[in-house]
This record gives sequence, structure tokens and C-alpha cells, in this order.
Amino acid sequence: MLASQSSPSTTSVSLHPFDPITPEEIKLAVRILEAAFPGVTLRYKRIDLQEPIKKDVIAYIEAERLRKPLPQKPPRLLFSYFHRLDSGVFHKALLNADSKSVIHIKELPAHVQGPIDVDEVTEIEALCMRHPAVLAEIEKLKLPPGMAVCNDPWMYGSDSPNETRRLFQCFMYMVEVDHPENNHYSLPCKFSPVFDASTRELVRMDYLPGGTDTKVTETQPWRPVKTIQYAHDLLDEPLRNDLKPYIVQQPEGASFSIDGNSVYWQKWRFRVGFNNREGLVLYNITYDNRNVFYRLSVSEMTVPYGDPRAPYHRKQAFDVGDVGFGLNANQLTLGCDCLGHIKYFDGYRTDSKGNPVHLKNIICMHEQDNGLQHKHTNYRSGAATVVRNRQLVLQMICTVANYEYIFAYIFDQAANVELEVRATGILSTVPFDNENGETVAWGTNVGPGVMAPFHQHMFSLRIDPAIDGFKNTVYYEDSVPLPEDEKNPYLVGYTTEQTVIRKSGSANTDINRHRVFKIRNDNIINPVTYKPVAYKLQTAPSQMLLLSQNAMGYRRAEFASKPIWVTKYNDDELYAAGEFTNQSRRAEGVETWVQRNDSTENEDVVLWHSKLPRALWVSQSGLTRSAAFGLTHNPRVEDFPVMPMERISVMLKPDGFFTKNPALDVPPSTQSFNKSTLHAEPAPVARCCSNGGASTKAKLYKRIE
Amino acid sequence: MLASQSSPSTTSVSLHPFDPITPEEIKLAVRILEAAFPGVTLRYKRIDLQEPIKKDVIAYIEAERLRKPLPQKPPRLLFSYFHRLDSGVFHKALLNADSKSVIHIKELPAHVQGPIDVDEVTEIEALCMRHPAVLAEIEKLKLPPGMAVCNDPWMYGSDSPNETRRLFQCFMYMVEVDHPENNHYSLPCKFSPVFDASTRELVRMDYLPGGTDTKVTETQPWRPVKTIQYAHDLLDEPLRNDLKPYIVQQPEGASFSIDGNSVYWQKWRFRVGFNNREGLVLYNITYDNRNVFYRLSVSEMTVPYGDPRAPYHRKQAFDVGDVGFGLNANQLTLGCDCLGHIKYFDGYRTDSKGNPVHLKNIICMHEQDNGLQHKHTNYRSGAATVVRNRQLVLQMICTVANYEYIFAYIFDQAANVELEVRATGILSTVPFDNENGETVAWGTNVGPGVMAPFHQHMFSLRIDPAIDGFKNTVYYEDSVPLPEDEKNPYLVGYTTEQTVIRKSGSANTDINRHRVFKIRNDNIINPVTYKPVAYKLQTAPSQMLLLSQNAMGYRRAEFASKPIWVTKYNDDELYAAGEFTNQSRRAEGVETWVQRNDSTENEDVVLWHSKLPRALWVSQSGLTRSAAFGLTHNPRVEDFPVMPMERISVMLKPDGFFTKNPALDVPPSTQSFNKSTLHAEPAPVARCCSNGGASTKAKLYKRIE
Repeated sequence: MLASQSSPSTTSVSLHPFDPITPEEIKLAVRILEAAFPGVTLRYKRIDLQEPIKKDVIAYIEAERLRKPLPQKPPRLLFSYFHRLDSGVFHKALLNADSKSVIHIKELPAHVQGPIDVDEVTEIEALCMRHPAVLAEIEKLKLPPGMAVCNDPWMYGSDSPNETRRLFQCFMYMVEVDHPENNHYSLPCKFSPVFDASTRELVRMDYLPGGTDTKVTETQPWRPVKTIQYAHDLLDEPLRNDLKPYIVQQPEGASFSIDGNSVYWQKWRFRVGFNNREGLVLYNITYDNRNVFYRLSVSEMTVPYGDPRAPYHRKQAFDVGDVGFGLNANQLTLGCDCLGHIKYFDGYRTDSKGNPVHLKNIICMHEQDNGLQHKHTNYRSGAATVVRNRQLVLQMICTVANYEYIFAYIFDQAANVELEVRATGILSTVPFDNENGETVAWGTNVGPGVMAPFHQHMFSLRIDPAIDGFKNTVYYEDSVPLPEDEKNPYLVGYTTEQTVIRKSGSANTDINRHRVFKIRNDNIINPVTYKPVAYKLQTAPSQMLLLSQNAMGYRRAEFASKPIWVTKYNDDELYAAGEFTNQSRRAEGVETWVQRNDSTENEDVVLWHSKLPRALWVSQSGLTRSAAFGLTHNPRVEDFPVMPMERISVMLKPDGFFTKNPALDVPPSTQSFNKSTLHAEPAPVARCCSNGGASTKAKLYKRIE
Repeated sequence: MLASQSSPSTTSVSLHPFDPITPEEIKLAVRILEAAFPGVTLRYKRIDLQEPIKKDVIAYIEAERLRKPLPQKPPRLLFSYFHRLDSGVFHKALLNADSKSVIHIKELPAHVQGPIDVDEVTEIEALCMRHPAVLAEIEKLKLPPGMAVCNDPWMYGSDSPNETRRLFQCFMYMVEVDHPENNHYSLPCKFSPVFDASTRELVRMDYLPGGTDTKVTETQPWRPVKTIQYAHDLLDEPLRNDLKPYIVQQPEGASFSIDGNSVYWQKWRFRVGFNNREGLVLYNITYDNRNVFYRLSVSEMTVPYGDPRAPYHRKQAFDVGDVGFGLNANQLTLGCDCLGHIKYFDGYRTDSKGNPVHLKNIICMHEQDNGLQHKHTNYRSGAATVVRNRQLVLQMICTVANYEYIFAYIFDQAANVELEVRATGILSTVPFDNENGETVAWGTNVGPGVMAPFHQHMFSLRIDPAIDGFKNTVYYEDSVPLPEDEKNPYLVGYTTEQTVIRKSGSANTDINRHRVFKIRNDNIINPVTYKPVAYKLQTAPSQMLLLSQNAMGYRRAEFASKPIWVTKYNDDELYAAGEFTNQSRRAEGVETWVQRNDSTENEDVVLWHSKLPRALWVSQSGLTRSAAFGLTHNPRVEDFPVMPMERISVMLKPDGFFTKNPALDVPPSTQSFNKSTLHAEPAPVARCCSNGGASTKAKLYKRIE
């Protein structure tokens, strides 16, 4: 199928290959597809940038880096997921925006479900709220005035290899109607309808267990309990009044400079990318004009829940593949989400009719001070060298129904790149009759009638490295005692053992051997260490998937069964759990690609890092190196009604990449530059003036005598 | 022995039991001791606060907390380590400052070596530099004009159970004389004299291996190489000129208030303690007037080196016990070491004659902004609640010859306490003839003629908890799959298993089971979770000691062989590797105390956390809970000539201590409060304007064709 050469009004000529999709390109894609399906109405799920062919783009970005004449720019490629409204058949199209033509259009098999889109979830939510069967259940609750019911449509998950319907499970909650931030997650209902998103029919009314076992009952009148609220307006307690302003100023402006989506800061240069699926992506990261990474992205995250009872066994969100962090990125507000001197980046998505939707301020960029970077005092002379650790932060905050994830790539002046993930937002809760001291072994009571089940957040960071070039090698290094022989007579010696990952595959972490994964360039030898230049992955090992290997959810998320995967780079291998995760039966991701048994030594590799609570994926160019990381989250009651952030961090650090500390040339920390102030001691305060008294607090807790 | 009731001019009556020692108390101790040894000259190593008897002090601080009439204040106790100059015998005295009397004075056995003191190390350093044997070696170097030699006296370490001499190993370096910050660690010499600190005699001239084996040679004329410098004045390259000021202002002042050493901040209240050995200590930490911790301190750190060759096998510093973080704490400077609105605390040490020495500004306290604490957007209404994460930081920076350690206790508004340790400063280096591409298996070349051996930093954080009271229980919780039976038909279920540490002992971490250590109060039940109130230890498990179990260094540092130790509280059990670590033969610390097999359930316990790179010790009141944490440090060339900080973090987090998120009442994040600024886009910068060009950089590295 070939598209007509439609309107000449939009052109991609001025765009960089890594620039996010523009509204003109979205409109162009719609015109090309409408021309390809004359007389057929299409319902769009996605129109977005297709990654450029890597071999083509490398020639281009290397010419940019080396200031050589630029070769022909690689074509801007776009893709679209859409349904024909006449047949309902799901398609994927690949388009060339430069030639305004179709490259190919594929019909996808009936069992393949595309991701959820914004319009679809809104429609399902509304459909649920007006369905007679749902209204009948709500009637039975006999809610008092001022109370209503709402629902969160969930991707259905998987428990059958034969399912081909597109399904949503709607979790229902009671909610007060007097404020836009009433916390419905505090008041879960015990019924949960399942809808077919294609036919718009009710498939089944599920009833949720109310006790510690699987028993379900008919819907009963609600016995009122107090909502546990998070919004400031709705708290019983007064707000703290003793927090003084803390203001960050950069009177001379920021230390970064920007040219479109290209960012320059403290010897770093990179391009800010954005797509609907992964959200923030970083491209072509160089330091002091040396290649470091081709592409960094959070390629997947899955959240399997540990409550063993139906229908909770299907609760396993893939927040990247099923929905998309880009789609759910918050439009950020100055002074609320970032502090200091802020630059924002925008993005675009498409609605179901193919109209571009502007996503304003979905990425913020700012500098921050992170304490000291290095210090040494010569104790003889008393002379000290002190350098502070200035950082550049690129932040995206995503709301996935109840949860929030805050992603930040943090660059520093010692050539480190950190991915920090903060989990916050609201726990996914279930109803639980706990007024008489009931507890379950797979969750935590977080309020009256409400329990938060255990779950895991398993991330996958995809690292496509370019350590001084695009052919790299992943290896790991263990710290082990030297043999107890004549060369180690005092039994104190230890050394390192290197294991090269020569073929695509996976690897485990090993705390007891202090295992460290590194990416090196075998072709470039450091003149001081006499070893290949390298970066290391610094991550805290974490528990992998708790799902049984025989559970369907395990096969859907096999990336999260191992912390480290290494693949040889292939275009189109971007997502750890495969391209289509929604209602998937098994992943077609890293666990499949490694089976090619490709050579991954001194090749274009990708490192994928899977983790739970602290880890990452590293992806090597030509080889794909990736790693998953995550968080076993057995909720605390303190995580409700909104969760104090839980921080996960993965760092990429130079290790023999330079010939000495690369931050030596950062100017010293001085008072004339920093303008700190000395605390003036006021008159002593009255003793014991802190908030609250023991007598009040003691009442809350039951003392066992 | 009883001291005379000397001068009435100083009194401890106004001091709190946890206040650091005052200069008046130091003078008082000297008067008491001089009266006890009439006609004898004493040489003082330490005069410092002796911890008050816990059972006495609890009654006092509980009355303070509950605003009840205060009972009799526990007596201020002091201790001193000193030598009689006539006999050389080493003593420890315990004194009552209130009654101005001796409690007891003990002569210590001949093999017990006290810690190093400031005057002693200065004397040894000078002794070494004027010793004829050393001068003769220096002569052989035939140094050019402008070059000199200096030395770092090191604690000798241990390799013999029979050694009773007090020994120092002096490591020698060449150094340019034209600047106070020339980096002598870049130019190590190959001779190393050993001195007897008592007799002041040269014991032996050690020669250091120059190659990959143990072969040593006579001192040769120096073949000049370039010093790898860290000081800004001495760099070849220009400083970066594109870093813009970043200024933190608190126009309304700080959110904390202070009464002496008592600090109040955002529902937290605690006392800042300081002693010569541990440096910064925190006492009587309460939140919203509920007890949380009785005492937190870094109780020990040991650094064993992995180079198997003599004399390096004895390189194993105990930076707390051998020297003291308090003694080595930097006197901090406004605008250099802390950014923002700063409060400083001072301390005191004594010199060898018993004179108080003022340590000004050795602890700084300030607030910082750490990004978002929690956020949730109701996607239906678009309404968002955003709260930032304000923190209070107490920081101490210690210089231990070459290395620097930055310790920060960080309090937040969600009732978390974090201990962050940053390792920076300069690697301990050794000479190595590496001009022809030589490498060793236990170290990294960091410059011409200089190698940095592998080593470990093993910390021990002592946590004396008071979770809602002084009787606590330590347990660990593992996350494990549910059995694959009819109650888990979909194979997704998982649960937690609790193991109570009922008897004093040790425990291991377990990543594969997501093992979490917690401290609970079995007497107080949370009304929402129906479980005892608790705090958890959040730490990244790390490799333990790499030393052979048969190595002497292992027996000296057995605390670092296990990540978790739990002991029942005893007064005087404060240091994980025992009271006297200098030239110790074995520790008499946690590994000894756990052997009492005390009951540690619902008792006054201490948790000790040992770790390597990220961990901690937790100490429970009545039971002593402690843990070691550390860092396997296989140096990168980037860690030289001064090391970009390596960060280690341990958090103590409420886990069922509150009934909901304790930070809900923190006011929202708003632009009117935060006053952020929007980046104004200047005209686009020229492309490829980042620092450095590829052509320059490429020359530094050898490309393999």
C-alpha cells in the first residue's frame, strides 16, 4: 500500500533525527493514512516518532561531533497504531515523513492488543458509570447524600492463552463529591465490572473478597467510615506553620545553553527526546566531545501484585507498554514541581481522531547543588581544596491512575549520569473488612475497610552505550580473595576477576563478590591504567520477580527475572517486555532476543538492567545492554493516603575513561560565589516547645500492659 | 585513689548530661588527675565526656519529654587516657565532674595501645624527618632543587601477637615545595622507616617493592615524573568558566530553633553531641514528642588494604578507634563546606599537656531542599497535591591523613533519618614502576610511578533505638512466594516471613529474599495495622570483609564480617571493634558481647550495622543493635589525585510507627513560597560549542587498529 503524496505544507527538513514528533508530522501522518484507506474511518491509538535507523544516524551525529560536513540526514520515520472502525482490525503503519509515504502497513493478529489511549480510558470510565448493572450495584450501597461512586479502568491483565477480546477491569470506589481531591482509594467497593472495549458490553460483574479468604457476598449497604484524605484542604490537622521559605536563585542565569532540544552543560552535550511510550529519552550523550551513550530510556516497568485471590491475580500493570509514561507525563508548574531556575520542554500526543494534543511543560530541566563533590585538606599546611557538586536534572513526573513516578536523569561534573526514580502517589487498594483486627499475610491495613496488597515495581533501564565509539563490550568484575599461598602469606590480599559477556544473554548480581558490571571499548586503551576505557553501572542489587516461573505474569515479564541482559543491537528492539504488553501472553522482548546467541564482544551492544528496588538497564550500541530495576513494595501504613517518595537510583560512572578526576577544573567553593548566611542565634526558645504533646499521641496507640 | 576537691571555679551543674565536654571540665579533669599523681608529670592522650549511665539518664530525659518535674541530674562523668611520663605506663581514669573526684584509675596492660593523638603524630613526623637514617635515604634520591620529602606516620597495624612496642610506620613521599597543596601522594618513595613512639628509636627501615612482586632494592636516584596535582593553582588546564552562581536564601531565617545543643525542627527534637572519638553523636531523638532513638553514632570504621606484600599487609586503619573522627573533624568555613543558612557547633579536645583546644565550627547544620516528597494528581479533576522534601542536615567532615569522610545525618518531614557518608580525599598510594605498561592484580595505576591498591572501607553504625520506649525487639522480614497450593491457584501470591532475633547475635542480609531489618516495640500496637510500632533499616547490602578468616586483621575487625549484630545494652559497650583498636590483636567488641547469649526480645537492645558500600549499624536501647557498612574500593584512575565523592547511605524509616503518612501536614509547594524563575531562552548558541575538540582528546588515548 502506498500513500498519496499529500499536502506540501509540512516538512521535516529542519528537524533533527532525534527531535520528538511535531504537530505538523501528526497531521501529515493522518493525511497519509487517510489517503491509504479511502472511505474508511480510522481510530488512532498512537502516532509517534519511529526511531531512525541507527547505522544511518551514526554517520550524521558523528559528523556533527567531529564538525565535518554533514551527510544526508536520515529520513524522519513515523509510526501509527490504529483501528479500522469498519472492521475493528488493529494495524501498525510505518511512514516516511520526508517522502510523505507509507513504508508498510501491517494488520496485527487478533490476540495482539494495542496500548490504552486517553480517549479510550475516558470512554470506558464513562461507559461503566452509566451501565445499568453498575448502577444497580451502586443502588445497593445506599450511599448517604454527598457520596458518589467512581471507577479506575484497569488493563485486564492475562490469565488465559485463548483470550482475544479487549478487556478492562473497572475497580470501583466511593467518593465524597465536595472537593476535587477526595481520596476515593480510601473507600474501595466490593464489585468490579469487566467490559469489552470493542463491543462496549459488560462481560462479567466480579465481586471482590471482603475478608481474609476468597469468599464474596452480594453488595451490602455501606457502613460509613472516614475517608483517609491527603489533600491539604481536607486534613483534620492544621498545616505546619514553622517551615520557612527556601529560595534558590541564579542571578546570572543557568549554566546550560540550549539549541532546540540540544543541551550543553559543563562539558556534557545531549539531545532531549520524548515519545508517548517511554516519555523522556536521552540521545547522543557526549562528554568533552567524546561519545558516552547513544540512547538512555526507561524501557518498561511492570507491577505484579501479590494478593493471590481472583481477580487480583490479573493485576499486573506494564506502565510503559500498556499505557505510556509520555502519555501520562504531568504538565509541570513553575515553583511546584521544580525549584530554582527552570527550563521546560513540551511534547505532543494524538487523540483518537488524529488531532495533535499539546503536552506543555512535560519535562523540566534545572541545576541543583548536591553538597560536596571533593575535598582535601593538607593537614600540614591546613590548605584545603573544596569543590561542590553541581548537577543538571531532567525530570518527568508520570501519573498512572493511582501512582506517581518521578524520573530524573542527573548529570554531574565528574562525568557521572544517574537515573533516579521516585515512587509516590497512592497505593492501589482493595476492600477489606478489618474492623475487628483482621490482617492478611499479603498486605497491610491502611485504614478502616481498606488494605494495600504487597506488590513489586520492576523497572527496565535500557542503556545503548557508545563508550568512545559504537562497538563496546559488557563484562563483570568480582572482588575475590587471593589464594592462600606463598604470594599471599599474610592472607590479606584480594583481587578482581573479569568475566566478559561474549554472547547475548543474562547475568546475575552477586553481593558477596561485590560484582560490578562495566561497559568498555576494547579498541581504546587508557594511557595511565593500560586498560580499555570503560563506564561502570553502579546499582544496588535487588530481589527479582516473586511470581512463580509457572505464572503467566512471569512469562509476560521475563525481563524482570534477571537483573542484567545483554543483546546485540537491532533496530526495533526497544522494549524489554516486547512491543505489545497489554493482555500479552508472553513477552517477546529481551528473553527472546538473547536467544539469538549473538556475539556481543566488541560489537554494538545494549545493556538492559532490571531491578527491584535499585538497579538499571544498560544498553550498548551494536550490542544492546539493558537491565531491570525495581522495588518490592510491602506497603507501610505511612505510605497512605499518599506515599512519601521511595527513591531508587542507578548510576553510570566513568571507570578508567579519563586519565584523572574529570572534575578537577571545577572552580573552588567560595563564599564570594555561594553567598551563604550565618545563623544568628535568637534568644533561647522555651523548652519542650515542639509540636504535639505525649498525652495526645499516646491515645492513638494501644499499650499492652 | 581519690582526688582532692580542687578549685570550685568550674561546675557542671548547668550542663545537660549529653552536652559535649567543656574547656572548664578539661581543666577540672587535669586538676583532679594532677592531685591524684602528686609530683608525676602526665602526658594526656584524651580527656573527654564519659557516657552517662543510661538508666539514670532515661529518668531525666523522660521527665523532660513528659514535662514532669525533673529528677536529680545524672552526674557528669569524664574519662582520660594518659601516660605517666616517669614510668611510661598507660592509664585510664574515670572521673566525676560534679563531685570533682576520681571514680577509678586503671593501669592498662603493656600490649594495650591507646589511640594516636595530635601532638604525638606531629612529633613522630618531625622525628622521622630529622633521623639520620632517613636523611641518608633522602640523600640517595638526589632530588633536584625545589623538591623535598615528607612523611605520613601510620598506625603500625598488627602482624604479631607478641608485639608490645608502640610503633609507627612512616610512609615517605617526595613533594615540591613551592605551594602548600602540592600532592605528595603522587610521588611515593620506596623506603619506609618504623619508629618506636615510646623510645623514639628507629626500629627498622622497610623498603617497598617497586614492581609487581615483592623484590625491593636500595634507594636509587629519582627519575623525575610529573606530579598529578589536585589544587586549583597547580592545574595545567584552565578552570571552567561557564558555571553560574547558585544561591540559596532563607530570607525569613531557618526553620530550626536551638537551645544550647538541643535542636528543634519540624516535629523532630534531638541533642547534638560531640566527642573526640566518634565526632558527631545524636542523642534522645524524638518525633512529635515520641521516642525514636536514644543514640546514633558511627562507632567504628576499618580500612584493610588488599595488596598482599609486606609491609602493606599491616595497612588497616581503624579511623575511629586508632585516631578519632572528632579529633580530625575539619573546622568548617561559611560558603565552602555548607551552602545556605548555616549554624555551626564547636567542640574541644585536649593537647598532650592537658590544655583545652578549641575546635571551632566542626559541625554544621542547615536545611536543604531534596526535590519532591509526595505528589498526586487526580486525573479526573486535574487537581494536584505537591509537597517538597525539606531536610535538616548535620554535617561533619573528617580528614584522616590522605582521606576525607563527610558524615551527614539527614532528617526529613516524613520522620526518616538518613546517615549519608561521602568518601573523598586522596587515595593511599604506593610506589610502582609502571612506565612500561606494568599492572598489578590488586591495584590501579593512577599516574607515573604510582599505584593505588584495592581496599575496603567497613563502617559500623551503632543504633541505640527507643521506638516508643526503651524496650525494643529486632527482627527481619523476608518476602517469599506463597506455597503453590489451592490458596495460591494463579501462582502470583507472595507474603512475608518474620524472624525475631531473640538472643544476642548476628544476621546476614539476603537480597533474594528482600530481607529487611526492623526494630519494633512489642508493647505498643498500631491501631490501623494491628502490629507493633516499628522503624526499619533501609540499606543496600554490601560485601563483607575480604580478609581471610585466618588473617589477624579479620580478628581485629570481626564486626565487619557480618552486616547485622544485635546486643543487649550495656554501659561502656560503644565501639564495634572494642575500646582499644590501635595495634590490637583481636577485637573485643560486638563479636565478644554477642557471646553472652543475652535475651534481646523486648529488651534494651542495640543494633550494629556493618557494611561495604551501603549499610549501617542499628543499636537498640537495653539491647544494643548495631550494623557495619562499607565500600569495596577498587580505585578508578578517576579517583586520583582527589576522589569525586562516593556516597553511602543508610536510612531509618518509620514502618507502622504512625497511622498514616506523617508529612501530610507539610504545606503545599507553591510558586509564592518557592519563587522559582523561568529560563528565558537566549538567541540560539552556535552549534558544537562545547568544551574541547575531538582532535585534542583523541591524542590522549591510544587507538588499537
